[in-house]
Amino acid sequence: MAITTRPISAITTMMVEMTNVSGGFSPVITLDRTAAKPLHRQIYDAFRATIIGRNLQSGQQVPSSRTLALELGISRIPVLSAYDQLLAEGYFESRRGAGTFVSSSLPDQLMSCEYRSAGPDQPPSGPRKTSDRSALLPGREESPWVFGSGAFSVGQLAFDHFPLQIWANLVSRHARKVRASALNYAEPMGSRDFREAIATYLRTARAVHCDASQIMVVSGSQQALDLSARVLLDPGRPVWVEDPSYRLMQFALTMAGCRLIPVPVDGEGMDVAAGVKTCRKARAAFVTPSHQFPLGVTMSASRRLQLLDWAHNAGSWIVEDDYDSEYRYESLPIASLQGLDHGKRVIYIGTFSKTLFPAVRLGYMVIPTDLVDRFVAVRRALDVCPPSFNQAVLTDFINQGHFARHIRKTRMVYAERRSALVVAVEQEFGSRLPILGDEAGMNLAVKLPPGLADREISIRAAARNLWLWPLSTSYLGKPVHQGFILGFGSIKKSDIPAAVRRLKDELSAHPKWS
Amino acid sequence: MAITTRPISAITTMMVEMTNVSGGFSPVITLDRTAAKPLHRQIYDAFRATIIGRNLQSGQQVPSSRTLALELGISRIPVLSAYDQLLAEGYFESRRGAGTFVSSSLPDQLMSCEYRSAGPDQPPSGPRKTSDRSALLPGREESPWVFGSGAFSVGQLAFDHFPLQIWANLVSRHARKVRASALNYAEPMGSRDFREAIATYLRTARAVHCDASQIMVVSGSQQALDLSARVLLDPGRPVWVEDPSYRLMQFALTMAGCRLIPVPVDGEGMDVAAGVKTCRKARAAFVTPSHQFPLGVTMSASRRLQLLDWAHNAGSWIVEDDYDSEYRYESLPIASLQGLDHGKRVIYIGTFSKTLFPAVRLGYMVIPTDLVDRFVAVRRALDVCPPSFNQAVLTDFINQGHFARHIRKTRMVYAERRSALVVAVEQEFGSRLPILGDEAGMNLAVKLPPGLADREISIRAAARNLWLWPLSTSYLGKPVHQGFILGFGSIKKSDIPAAVRRLKDELSAHPKWS
Repeated sequence: MAITTRPISAITTMMVEMTNVSGGFSPVITLDRTAAKPLHRQIYDAFRATIIGRNLQSGQQVPSSRTLALELGISRIPVLSAYDQLLAEGYFESRRGAGTFVSSSLPDQLMSCEYRSAGPDQPPSGPRKTSDRSALLPGREESPWVFGSGAFSVGQLAFDHFPLQIWANLVSRHARKVRASALNYAEPMGSRDFREAIATYLRTARAVHCDASQIMVVSGSQQALDLSARVLLDPGRPVWVEDPSYRLMQFALTMAGCRLIPVPVDGEGMDVAAGVKTCRKARAAFVTPSHQFPLGVTMSASRRLQLLDWAHNAGSWIVEDDYDSEYRYESLPIASLQGLDHGKRVIYIGTFSKTLFPAVRLGYMVIPTDLVDRFVAVRRALDVCPPSFNQAVLTDFINQGHFARHIRKTRMVYAERRSALVVAVEQEFGSRLPILGDEAGMNLAVKLPPGLADREISIRAAARNLWLWPLSTSYLGKPVHQGFILGFGSIKKSDIPAAVRRLKDELSAHPKWS
Repeated sequence: MAITTRPISAITTMMVEMTNVSGGFSPVITLDRTAAKPLHRQIYDAFRATIIGRNLQSGQQVPSSRTLALELGISRIPVLSAYDQLLAEGYFESRRGAGTFVSSSLPDQLMSCEYRSAGPDQPPSGPRKTSDRSALLPGREESPWVFGSGAFSVGQLAFDHFPLQIWANLVSRHARKVRASALNYAEPMGSRDFREAIATYLRTARAVHCDASQIMVVSGSQQALDLSARVLLDPGRPVWVEDPSYRLMQFALTMAGCRLIPVPVDGEGMDVAAGVKTCRKARAAFVTPSHQFPLGVTMSASRRLQLLDWAHNAGSWIVEDDYDSEYRYESLPIASLQGLDHGKRVIYIGTFSKTLFPAVRLGYMVIPTDLVDRFVAVRRALDVCPPSFNQAVLTDFINQGHFARHIRKTRMVYAERRSALVVAVEQEFGSRLPILGDEAGMNLAVKLPPGLADREISIRAAARNLWLWPLSTSYLGKPVHQGFILGFGSIKKSDIPAAVRRLKDELSAHPKWS
């Protein structure tokens, strides 16, 4: 074979490369010992058909003749004979020291004459119908601003300030400590130690009224919203949602088949009296009292009490999403709504996606004691249990104080970025672009002057890698404001003035701006 | 303080211990600068109330006076003054070199006189009502056999044969390689490299017709079942399910509000003609063609074609759960149903919970190309995206050939365990306990003689740590068989005869056995 003449170093490189497209899997081969066709020919035909049909691809490793003979339960002779023929015809190639592979350069005439497309079949005309409720959700391409990174993408963090080295050390230490027993299914509520650490944190820093038996570990606040909707609400039931509010929360309720009742948000948070007037009998209210998404309002004490009164009188539930309450700048931290209620009617939700990093996929909920059994039953039907490894790593990260330190450090980082953004917006725009909700979190909102439509500006800006989340898309009813949600989590302080000038360029290009 | 007289080593030990119950979080303290009450008194009162209310617990670390002053935006003097008083009164204790902690021995009279329960509030009378559909799922205590480990717990693997060292090395290597950019949200479909590796595996080893663009990474087969139900089916729609079948699959469909149509299973798998007769217009069929759960039948070729014909004619979907098809003992591997159909009407589901380990929480589905957009939209509403770290580790594990090797090795392990179980059951019971479905997977079923009820025997056995999954609980309609599903994945070959004797003891204790 040509390859045997190459120098060793080239072969080694190739072996490493090949490792990345192989796996040594055996193809599905059905042998018929009673057939007239001899075994070696059946094996040859099976490989040839699999290669032509592209189920075995160029450069992919095939099992050794010995392994395949063992798996097929036959002698090695017919396998060797089939392999010899496949090598001779150029379907296979062997590489010294590495094994046998599907040829990386298949004969041209084979590909042009015999190849029939085995790529995914396109349906005759457009996508087929799925469930009615799934059809209500927008497609990915309809909101390009969600998927960017850089200025002013929402939900992005100061990743460069994460203590990667400490985290990596904890990961390595746990990897070495893993015992076979830790490979099994985990508790559906999450690991006990992790839930203790979360309960301590929530009692102290968020004044949540809880113990570990009420904490359920989830994959992030989104799973907690979905799970709450499914445990608490049946299809067709009315639910209060803040208007405007977080779209993925709206989608979770839509998928649960709920009837969404938009309740306006003013300077004190959700307007409870308006909600009572529209639909007193709503079965639940989904709220963000610490830092309303997207307007940034903090719910006032009197509204909190009104909301709890309504829930107790109507026998309804409150789902409190406390997604970024750890980051609060000018005033002091606000205690959770759940703590006020002593956990009777409130399901409390939080996430490590803002305080740690989103890829960890860990969040938590605090469940009233009598509902724990139902949440566990439904959770098992959704995804059985959370993965265990990250829970163990994060438990140490919290208990060793790294988590509290990281929050303190990033609070200062975000405070600086926020101030820089506020200053730059005021400098560039004066009072033409009023700022809302800059007291907490990693995003604020700016209001556009009348006559400008946010969505079209956002789509144009996204094409130039400037991410402006249009405020109007967060409304269920008629948008009260047009404007943008600007994330400042991942943008360096020094880059903010230039980014704000880019925003100004986008707006200046609009005929109605001038 | 007494502690200063202890030797250094004792203090060090205590510091390490304390680290495990602390975190250094700051409690929620609201200061009113305009109040008559001085700041130091406000801080003292806030800590005292938090400790009495048990939101700060014995032994928990509190922030340093400097940190707290910074966070409250006040001078350090009132904080120091409050801390001094809390130390003097015994609410706090300071430990040299470690910091300030809530006292590990709070005054008795404080606890007895002032403490009011801050544990979870018990509702006045039993659990409150949740959604109708969540109320349909059984509670955990109703099926004790699900949660055991050892003989004959179902879904347990040969964890002792997992190459932990190789896995730990890959984990450590990736931990060191993680860049800040990898901390962000991941692709909702899963990482590209991982999906390429899965597609290669499925095309080769399972004859699945796919490319990486159709692969969605999920947290296990359960999430794939839940997601499929929600994307494909609206509430009230009829769905064929095998009878008997996997209960968590039934629960996923129940939570989606579907109408479950039980279709009997015979020696060739789901009886398609019976399904057509009962409800031709079902919108989907959920099947396990490679190794029917729990009866272990392999669906015959003619039934596969009948099922595909029905789906194409009725415009319905087939959800193929290929959960343990990698383990097949006497006959050769059976190609997937999806491959026969060229992926037009079949959603294919698989999991790493059987081939790798359940705690990794990774599975995959192969989605017809035109439905990918809807699956992504719904997946975002469920949990946004999968965690990224385990995907990267498993990609290397597959591409370096460890996965194929592990499957080959464990196939032999399970084959031995299965044979030992079959031999032991035949020796102890002869023809009194016929064996079903031992050709594949990690479980088989045994049928009880008429007159014996499996469920009550299972409950009694579970109390003695023998795990017998009762066959009757898998039926939606009237149970055709009473018997047990016996898992042999985690039980050593040498322990099997004794475990079968324990099963015999359980049966012999039954009045109707003898």
